[in-house]
Amino acid sequence: MNNPSVFLLAVHNHQPVGNFSSVFEKAFEDCYRPFLRELHKHPAIKFAAHYSGPLLEYMGEKEPECLDILKDMVASGQVELLGGGFYEPILTILPEEDRQGQLRMMNEFLEDNFQIRPRGIWLTERVWEPTLPKTLARAGIEYTLLDEEHFHYAGIQNLYAYYITEDEGYPLKIFPIDKKLRYLIPFQTLPDIESYLEEIKAQNGLAILGDDGEKFGLWPGTKKWVYEEGWLAKFLSFLEEKNIQTQTYSEVIDRRPPAGRVYLPPASYEEMMEWVLEPEDAAFFKRLKDENPAEARRYLRGGFFREFFLKYLESNHLHKRMIMISRKVNRTSNEAARKELYKGQGNDPLWHGVFGGLYLPHLREAAYDHLLKADALVPSESGWHIGDYDQDARAEAIWQGRTFGLLLKPAFGGSLVEIDHFPLSRNLMDVLSRRKEAYHVRQLSQPNGKGKSIHELAKELPAGSENFIRCDRHPRYSALDHFLHPETTLEKFQTAAYDEQGDFIDQPYDIRVHEPILRLHREGHVLVAGEKIPVCVQKEIEPQGQEIMIRYMIRNLADKTTHLKFGSEWNFYQIAEEIAVSQNEVRLCGGRIRFEVFPRPEIWHFALQTLSQSEKGYDIIHQGFCLLPWWSVTLSGGEEFRAQFSLRDHRGT
Amino acid sequence: MNNPSVFLLAVHNHQPVGNFSSVFEKAFEDCYRPFLRELHKHPAIKFAAHYSGPLLEYMGEKEPECLDILKDMVASGQVELLGGGFYEPILTILPEEDRQGQLRMMNEFLEDNFQIRPRGIWLTERVWEPTLPKTLARAGIEYTLLDEEHFHYAGIQNLYAYYITEDEGYPLKIFPIDKKLRYLIPFQTLPDIESYLEEIKAQNGLAILGDDGEKFGLWPGTKKWVYEEGWLAKFLSFLEEKNIQTQTYSEVIDRRPPAGRVYLPPASYEEMMEWVLEPEDAAFFKRLKDENPAEARRYLRGGFFREFFLKYLESNHLHKRMIMISRKVNRTSNEAARKELYKGQGNDPLWHGVFGGLYLPHLREAAYDHLLKADALVPSESGWHIGDYDQDARAEAIWQGRTFGLLLKPAFGGSLVEIDHFPLSRNLMDVLSRRKEAYHVRQLSQPNGKGKSIHELAKELPAGSENFIRCDRHPRYSALDHFLHPETTLEKFQTAAYDEQGDFIDQPYDIRVHEPILRLHREGHVLVAGEKIPVCVQKEIEPQGQEIMIRYMIRNLADKTTHLKFGSEWNFYQIAEEIAVSQNEVRLCGGRIRFEVFPRPEIWHFALQTLSQSEKGYDIIHQGFCLLPWWSVTLSGGEEFRAQFSLRDHRGT
Repeated sequence: MNNPSVFLLAVHNHQPVGNFSSVFEKAFEDCYRPFLRELHKHPAIKFAAHYSGPLLEYMGEKEPECLDILKDMVASGQVELLGGGFYEPILTILPEEDRQGQLRMMNEFLEDNFQIRPRGIWLTERVWEPTLPKTLARAGIEYTLLDEEHFHYAGIQNLYAYYITEDEGYPLKIFPIDKKLRYLIPFQTLPDIESYLEEIKAQNGLAILGDDGEKFGLWPGTKKWVYEEGWLAKFLSFLEEKNIQTQTYSEVIDRRPPAGRVYLPPASYEEMMEWVLEPEDAAFFKRLKDENPAEARRYLRGGFFREFFLKYLESNHLHKRMIMISRKVNRTSNEAARKELYKGQGNDPLWHGVFGGLYLPHLREAAYDHLLKADALVPSESGWHIGDYDQDARAEAIWQGRTFGLLLKPAFGGSLVEIDHFPLSRNLMDVLSRRKEAYHVRQLSQPNGKGKSIHELAKELPAGSENFIRCDRHPRYSALDHFLHPETTLEKFQTAAYDEQGDFIDQPYDIRVHEPILRLHREGHVLVAGEKIPVCVQKEIEPQGQEIMIRYMIRNLADKTTHLKFGSEWNFYQIAEEIAVSQNEVRLCGGRIRFEVFPRPEIWHFALQTLSQSEKGYDIIHQGFCLLPWWSVTLSGGEEFRAQFSLRDHRGT
Repeated sequence: MNNPSVFLLAVHNHQPVGNFSSVFEKAFEDCYRPFLRELHKHPAIKFAAHYSGPLLEYMGEKEPECLDILKDMVASGQVELLGGGFYEPILTILPEEDRQGQLRMMNEFLEDNFQIRPRGIWLTERVWEPTLPKTLARAGIEYTLLDEEHFHYAGIQNLYAYYITEDEGYPLKIFPIDKKLRYLIPFQTLPDIESYLEEIKAQNGLAILGDDGEKFGLWPGTKKWVYEEGWLAKFLSFLEEKNIQTQTYSEVIDRRPPAGRVYLPPASYEEMMEWVLEPEDAAFFKRLKDENPAEARRYLRGGFFREFFLKYLESNHLHKRMIMISRKVNRTSNEAARKELYKGQGNDPLWHGVFGGLYLPHLREAAYDHLLKADALVPSESGWHIGDYDQDARAEAIWQGRTFGLLLKPAFGGSLVEIDHFPLSRNLMDVLSRRKEAYHVRQLSQPNGKGKSIHELAKELPAGSENFIRCDRHPRYSALDHFLHPETTLEKFQTAAYDEQGDFIDQPYDIRVHEPILRLHREGHVLVAGEKIPVCVQKEIEPQGQEIMIRYMIRNLADKTTHLKFGSEWNFYQIAEEIAVSQNEVRLCGGRIRFEVFPRPEIWHFALQTLSQSEKGYDIIHQGFCLLPWWSVTLSGGEEFRAQFSLRDHRGT
């Protein structure tokens, strides 16, 4: 047979909700616009394109030219648009109702703007679980693209073809994305690409490429290479001259049957399934892959996406809060709330690897912003609610007013895990703890940086990094009750180089509700001069309109006098310009919110900073501020020390 | 701490729908009844018990004593009953509606008979997918038991504890079943068991055992050991004397929090995930596990249950037919049909390992019996339907009348894959092809049988086995169009030691419907004396009330005379007593159904037999009969040969 080469291209374009508008502008300027213009000049070259909701909305407002080109190419049949969850959520971790809603929102947008119904979707981060076919079939979707890795896990040899699977009898067609093509395009020369396409053609196969559109101009160095030096124009002419057939994915489905049936276990692309592992586990797993023959990759499987909720408590919290708000919103028909909910479901702030935005405060901020707007749009019941919002089989305490919202973990130090300020639509406690990352270790042990993958090129660990790769001793919650050694200094505290003298930080507190007061109570011990002194900590939390009062009572349960250095740790998501610390008052959010402490304490405070990797290198990122108001007190047997905290909205609702 | 040992026992008791009543009788006599009697004498020993629906229904009818003992122990709090899908289906492969229905049926049965609502379930074959928590939460279920393997896959070290997971925010608690305890109990002596329980106690852990109740009397040798030699009585006294605390699973949940959160990928017990693999793959996978360190088992994962649908076409067909009938039934409120559907959803005939009933014709027969009853209870639309019932992206043709039902695969030789006879509620084509199994290979290469696991002890390959471990050249469908070499003999045909001369068997046929006729048409080639002769095969299928007519037309498309040896292969699920072959007539089902062929052919016929393993050894199983009516014909250029088949119900509906 002498069939022509068949080359299938899908470009996936995405910017997360909450990304800086300068990034959107630059992305269109350097990448999305020139890409569309170039393809428009080659009307015979068919391809599939996916634009996530934030890009589609932005195009409608700011990039009419792009939208017009796209409409033209869709109308002519040059472009097949792919659907997906509108705000680019990981579908498998969303409530089914929201999956349908997000898919429908995209279907309707494409129908309204392009007069088409998508037959395929771009699956966010290709996070696959075997129950997706039913979800997608319900939304009218026939196919998607996955990675080679998914197919390796099922022992499939021929990746130059597409397959079919099912769940509960609902079918889905799946195209495996060719990893080699992803590395060839647009980085290599045309002869290299041609010889690989020849290889695929010799097997009468399909050359299947699905990849990030940002590779065509936005990734470092690609603008020059792809446009200024003309790689893309040359590549498109090459396709035409060599008579390489381009087809849309739907055309392929309509023209040839699948190569076979498959059942794929949960997977994503190879790197993602390493990123989700703890550093030592990831290293061990990589070694296993290196040391075993290639055929072993069917059985050697990494972590799966849900495990990010174990690795990063902050990701888990965002996810479980989203589900809590989703249930509330889905009990109503409030469409404005639903749209805010969907905007808060984007994948980016939930994970971290080379990409992924967990470490990026502005993406987390945007997620909370939209979720809290959704939350505020649907009335809450008044008073305290005790329930297990995050499925850890421990009760949490939740309170929501017009100004503030609180979420406490009695089982973990009676601490606050979220303080919402609804007028600013902001989770004031949205900070990130410092934790060990795989690249911290690797970098320190291989300072010459040899043998790195393409993802790690050109990265240099910044000077003084050792200060940022210390691990926090506990999650950066608030109202964490410290008993410090007399010699613990701010520096030691800040660098996590101290020993906790009490057993309160992460231990369970009893709770009792006397509306409007929540009382947290624990009898524990403090090590004082080598002796374990029984101590009781009681915290009363009383929301009062625009103010939250927190009353502490520390009692010496021993029958003799003791000296205690007690502090209550608070962590706030604030940039330097927003916060001002004075003697017993901290102004937050540029003065709008005041955090006051009585009696007058010492206040240690310092910036929370993390060191993380991105596609450009290593970033030191300001995550917020830690405040530790503390007192040295001497208590005789049975004596109490009392302190009071207040968090007040100065402007009102 | 000096906490007592805590020992959690769960016994799972199950006999599949359709198992011989003699097996039920023996199981109660040797196992279920003596077990309950013995436990009843030790009211302080708490445990959990699961009885699948078929056993509960049988108990109600035939074993009132067992039911009374059980009621008494449930009322006293000694026994916690576990729920589950009523007829022991694999939940993950059922439509969600039926999962809920089967779980609800069990809940209601337990409520009606024992006045309790189960809080936990026994998960059939522990076939887990990460979306089950939502399914189970909807049915009011709080916990289940899984295997160590599930937890190894998630990197969990401490297996002497329970965990919590979630899906879409719905929680589920999970207990890991201790594999070592499964091997100790009831097979080892009390000191061995005691020392292991001590080991667990030293870690302040839970000793968690969940296992088949049949180990206590029904497995080979256990009746003597467990009851006659008194192992069980001694073990229960031992628990009492050593003051080992037994608790129900619900008590544990109510008394202590889970050890942590987990997300588990799809899994079942270790052996199941090997059985689902093709023989060479299973061998390779086992080698990988042997050659890598123990820590690698987190990443070394076998197949998952759905892959049985790839390994065994017969399992896939039964599953997809079930889904087809489920959809039909679930569009109605016909409760009788729904109950038959559920009865046809049992796990046993869908898989094979050491256990599993795919190779057992009476279990497959029972599944089709109930599914076809469900099918017949809901009216079908008349005429031919073209659709993809099994999600292979190829159209099938389906026809259903009062007497017969037909299912054809035009894309695979225009063959019949199912012939239903509704009055007898029987799929006449329910045969099993011979295929390579892992133990065929192992057995032949290791005739001394050394180094076998406990599952394989005492197995001897029967004499003459080589005749049964040949692989069939194609699935045993019907109306398969053979062109034979003049020298192909019955023996060669039977042993699959022949070469097909035509390209019709597994190739696509065009279809056209002219109600009530379905016309299948293919122009292909036959190799005759080294030359490829173009030949057309046309089959017309015409259902006529109680009769199905099949008219063949074979045309020589060449312009010269050729000799063809043409046969149409039919495979029927019949035992020897039911079938009688005469010159051009075959009587099926004891004469009720007649299969006639004109003009008078030669008819080759032989029994279809398989060699499979079970817990008792190797079984040679009669799966049905193969019939090949054939003709030697000489056709001049353009000439046709015509033949006619008729399948008729002699008694009428």
